Amino acid sequence: MKKDHVIAIDLGGTNIRVALVKGQRIVDKIQIPTRVYKKKEQLLEGIMGAVKVLLKNAKRPKSKILGIGIGTAGLVDSQKGIIHHLVNISGWKNVHIKKIFEKALNLPTYVDNDVNVMALAEGVFGAGKGASNILCITVGTGVGAGIIIDKQLYRGSSLSAGEIGHMPLGIGGIKCNCGGTGCMETFVGNDYMVNRTRKLLKGHRRSLILKLACNKPLEITPKLLTKAASLGDKVAIEAWKQTGRYLGIALAGAVNLLNPEVIIIGGGMAGAGKFLFEPVKKTIQKRAMSVPARAVRVVKAKLGNDAGLIGAAELVREEQ
Amino acid sequence: MKKDHVIAIDLGGTNIRVALVKGQRIVDKIQIPTRVYKKKEQLLEGIMGAVKVLLKNAKRPKSKILGIGIGTAGLVDSQKGIIHHLVNISGWKNVHIKKIFEKALNLPTYVDNDVNVMALAEGVFGAGKGASNILCITVGTGVGAGIIIDKQLYRGSSLSAGEIGHMPLGIGGIKCNCGGTGCMETFVGNDYMVNRTRKLLKGHRRSLILKLACNKPLEITPKLLTKAASLGDKVAIEAWKQTGRYLGIALAGAVNLLNPEVIIIGGGMAGAGKFLFEPVKKTIQKRAMSVPARAVRVVKAKLGNDAGLIGAAELVREEQ
Repeated sequence: MKKDHVIAIDLGGTNIRVALVKGQRIVDKIQIPTRVYKKKEQLLEGIMGAVKVLLKNAKRPKSKILGIGIGTAGLVDSQKGIIHHLVNISGWKNVHIKKIFEKALNLPTYVDNDVNVMALAEGVFGAGKGASNILCITVGTGVGAGIIIDKQLYRGSSLSAGEIGHMPLGIGGIKCNCGGTGCMETFVGNDYMVNRTRKLLKGHRRSLILKLACNKPLEITPKLLTKAASLGDKVAIEAWKQTGRYLGIALAGAVNLLNPEVIIIGGGMAGAGKFLFEPVKKTIQKRAMSVPARAVRVVKAKLGNDAGLIGAAELVREEQ
Repeated sequence: MKKDHVIAIDLGGTNIRVALVKGQRIVDKIQIPTRVYKKKEQLLEGIMGAVKVLLKNAKRPKSKILGIGIGTAGLVDSQKGIIHHLVNISGWKNVHIKKIFEKALNLPTYVDNDVNVMALAEGVFGAGKGASNILCITVGTGVGAGIIIDKQLYRGSSLSAGEIGHMPLGIGGIKCNCGGTGCMETFVGNDYMVNRTRKLLKGHRRSLILKLACNKPLEITPKLLTKAASLGDKVAIEAWKQTGRYLGIALAGAVNLLNPEVIIIGGGMAGAGKFLFEPVKKTIQKRAMSVPARAVRVVKAKLGNDAGLIGAAELVREEQ
């Protein structure tokens, strides 16, 4: 029997998704809010249960399943198959999830972080389909990247490649969570953008931003700034322009170094659409060298929330 | 008969070297100052002549030759085998050197730029021997890199990967030759370092640097600064410290993004030894994330001038 289905698991901070995937098609899925689970054992049992229900409902025998792929927001050792930490799940420390699933379900299991999984999904089926060398970044609270080289996920020497958010954009700068200084994330990440916008607002008390935030500057989010920008608010448009320019400068460096065919931008901030993408593209063309700048397409991620499941499934096929 | 020899050609701005290479051993070589040749035809004839002499002297029949590998400082299209420009050689424009050599000598011919060729040599036989993922940089007038991923030279989507000298190290900054602004090269390149040192000297009229330069600030070079530093001159040591720190910050970005196993530093500035390498290493450990920082070794290039020939030969073997 042809093993053409994969069990894909997306262990996110908000939702846990378990799905039966064939190619890029999600045959069936079960979604459970992560907060339902407090303890490691509960969570593992929950997933196992979901897997069984999926297989039964879809009437697929286990002999059709190639393996299990897991993408997670937690800290991962993809080689050993360990998820080191999962936020808000007590007792979760260095869990050898590969071993646990392989023993319980007798199916080869692979795990990787959510950015790498997304890069695989977008690279094979999404916005990077057909390209060989891809930089797939997510921009939100943090900024991370998955790198595809020669159609393969590139993980680096100690499995930590892709930390594009921590490329320095200055000699000095703001101290970053990572221990470094002046990292790109301190220019582009959600909180930094919102903080900068609060300063921009000082001379513009009548900006729509404040209206939309019910006059509570602490309620400002990038999503709200996108809404304000789309209603024509100048401060919001300027805030996105600034953020796009910073992101573009960092990406110009990556373009010069890696000469990728496609840069895919996903994550919360990609929702800003043209308000972010236009200054990003303009800055890359201005700051990167002409040959690699002409070679690169900058596009929005295509698969949305499904990227986590489709990429987790691809993780299994990649190993065949 | 086993094809275990390669004809390697190093087309440098100062010297042209033609050699017969077996593995990493240079069996015999002919070196001619580049300025001997004024025209394209002369240069090509000179190389052809050298190849014939080498084969005759070494008593190697052509049937033992695997092919011809060419490394050059000129602008290259490695896929089509074209050298677009060669400085000071009149009539040299978009020369399809691959075709010319394949027709004249009936041997498969490959060409690439000198940094990629050096990365191959150092990666396979030199300071990166055994490593899978390597960043090999040259620091001199310009700063360039060759990237080895999974033991293969990574050239990028339009063959222009490796322009690490043009990663921005600031939002603004000095206008760079490449058209960008604040590129790493404008912090680290020879001329920029020397200019900065001239400013540092203003309060230190008795620095050894001026003595060694016979009181002519225009005579200051990185080599002279290394000599002054090794004699204990504080300004020279500070100048290297600054340059090493800037280089280290840029490399911290590359370490976070690419997570290489080894960074090899070659080119004129590598001659500064510990004066450059110590601040570079210290800065990488301080600015890069702990996992990739712990994983990377920073080492000096090992093969010196021979890297050009050994790497050019490797270019041919890589294609087999």
